Amino acid sequence: MAQELRIITTGGTFDKQYDAIKGELTFRESQLPRILQQARCTLTVQLEGPLAIDSLYMTEEQRHEVAASCLSSNEDRIVVIHGTDTMCKTAAVVAEAMGKENTHVIVFTGAMIPYSLENSDAVFNLGCAITAVQTLKAGVYICMSGRIFPWDNCIKNKDKGIFEYL
Amino acid sequence: MAQELRIITTGGTFDKQYDAIKGELTFRESQLPRILQQARCTLTVQLEGPLAIDSLYMTEEQRHEVAASCLSSNEDRIVVIHGTDTMCKTAAVVAEAMGKENTHVIVFTGAMIPYSLENSDAVFNLGCAITAVQTLKAGVYICMSGRIFPWDNCIKNKDKGIFEYL
Amino acid sequence: MAQELRIITTGGTFDKQYDAIKGELTFRESQLPRILQQARCTLTVQLEGPLAIDSLYMTEEQRHEVAASCLSSNEDRIVVIHGTDTMCKTAAVVAEAMGKENTHVIVFTGAMIPYSLENSDAVFNLGCAITAVQTLKAGVYICMSGRIFPWDNCIKNKDKGIFEYL
Amino acid sequence: MAQELRIITTGGTFDKQYDAIKGELTFRESQLPRILQQARCTLTVQLEGPLAIDSLYMTEEQRHEVAASCLSSNEDRIVVIHGTDTMCKTAAVVAEAMGKENTHVIVFTGAMIPYSLENSDAVFNLGCAITAVQTLKAGVYICMSGRIFPWDNCIKNKDKGIFEYL
Repeated sequence: MAQELRIITTGGTFDKQYDAIKGELTFRESQLPRILQQARCTLTVQLEGPLAIDSLYMTEEQRHEVAASCLSSNEDRIVVIHGTDTMCKTAAVVAEAMGKENTHVIVFTGAMIPYSLENSDAVFNLGCAITAVQTLKAGVYICMSGRIFPWDNCIKNKDKGIFEYL
Repeated sequence: MAQELRIITTGGTFDKQYDAIKGELTFRESQLPRILQQARCTLTVQLEGPLAIDSLYMTEEQRHEVAASCLSSNEDRIVVIHGTDTMCKTAAVVAEAMGKENTHVIVFTGAMIPYSLENSDAVFNLGCAITAVQTLKAGVYICMSGRIFPWDNCIKNKDKGIFEYL
Repeated sequence: MAQELRIITTGGTFDKQYDAIKGELTFRESQLPRILQQARCTLTVQLEGPLAIDSLYMTEEQRHEVAASCLSSNEDRIVVIHGTDTMCKTAAVVAEAMGKENTHVIVFTGAMIPYSLENSDAVFNLGCAITAVQTLKAGVYICMSGRIFPWDNCIKNKDKGIFEYL
Repeated sequence: MAQELRIITTGGTFDKQYDAIKGELTFRESQLPRILQQARCTLTVQLEGPLAIDSLYMTEEQRHEVAASCLSSNEDRIVVIHGTDTMCKTAAVVAEAMGKENTHVIVFTGAMIPYSLENSDAVFNLGCAITAVQTLKAGVYICMSGRIFPWDNCIKNKDKGIFEYL
């Protein structure tokens, strides 16, 4: 049965956690369930976590996996949690895969600072994406820096750590 | 000159901070500037803080002050940070004051747990409200629990600590 | 069998948690187990929680309960988590109850800001108390503000929110 | 004029902060002043920060720099914030440098999780070290895992992320 929303997690900075033994940021189970509870979000959410990787190392094949997840989603409204470095690239792959008859609203978001660190933007960005996906019409979008970008008019400014229009 | 967004803070649980000397949650300067920085939000925001009170003790006169702030706003897009207990009541006062020719998008939000406490929903809710105000058409709305409510179809479920449709 | 350490929790600001439904700071189960895990503390600890109250409302009878817990402790080393407002008063009651032949090291500590709030001093103070109780000789002490006070040479400066020598 | 305490920071996990642009944990200005304020510590503290490095990459020369700082300290009580991986090694270099006539109390501590991350042990460990340095007699010690170790009877268990007796 379709839920009100699907969230596809792919890893990225958003979901990185510190491994005290290894002494580095890494991926464990997604923190999405915990964040949705903290957010006191009452939407019914279908969580899907095909990947847990740094987006710098995401292959073309993996981008197509994300697109396949979107295409086969029972839910019309999809949030994709993604690393910021290649978010725009995967959004383009997904947009192409969805085609012109696309009836899904797909919103990409991520974080510049992991959820588990102080001053993280993860929870804010998730709030933006969950709202955007409920209010926008069908299409592929990127929600970062407090703004809503069409997938084909968005670029990460790596020096400033923000997303901008082209 | 108009900014992209106006945020009107009125206090409420969202903005409560612990006073270590008094041993209680109270109001100091609004934490909005700090939260917008944490959110890495690049929108130009006009902050306005007419009140810093618990919404349980908000008078009718104070609700009309909030409405007056909305009416005189140079910005068409307005987020109102408000205590949850009487958020719907103030939204109704504002909706009536804006009238049928209203061209402003006004989104109320707040928090069940103060920003300065662990597991707060404040930052998530602010992300929701800031996105809703950019994507909705003119009207008065409430953004809580991950959902977007019209002002006249929303009630706080005080037992569960969530917002619901009537 | 005796553990290396006994921690007696009585409530106080240290252990207050926010109740989102009631909208106030209150007491739930003690957060000590979670804090000891965060501290990566490997000492074997016997936790005892006879009370969960604001020390302003602690009765003489309850102070004697704390003293009775100390007297009957299998562990020689005892940390008492206590509200700051009457910490010195309970320490005096305990010191008298222990008498001149006391062989226990008893260290009181607490917090000016609850553990569950940002910028809390709770974890620091617990580290101080757990170390003091291992290094000091028999007696009753107060560990606050980074210092170690004998129970009869300590007062809370309520205006500054710190502990000082008399 | 001598302060009550000297804290020498060398970097290590304790003081790592996330760089949102680089996407990695790195060193900026030490967070010690902020932590001492959060701790509501009223001791007068002389802060000295000769190094900001990962202790895995600390050279013998740098260990001797730390020893030189200890030797020339006006304060008898010294806390050294150090990475955990080679903390015992530097402690040994310092102990040898101080010699048999040493009148300083020197306590090493660090963290398994950086201060700026959730569930960090940094603040607890600092509380332990600051108390140990006030209560112990002259010598070189390591405060980790809630325990106080003599420098020559301590080893990091890298698999468990704790410190143990030899």
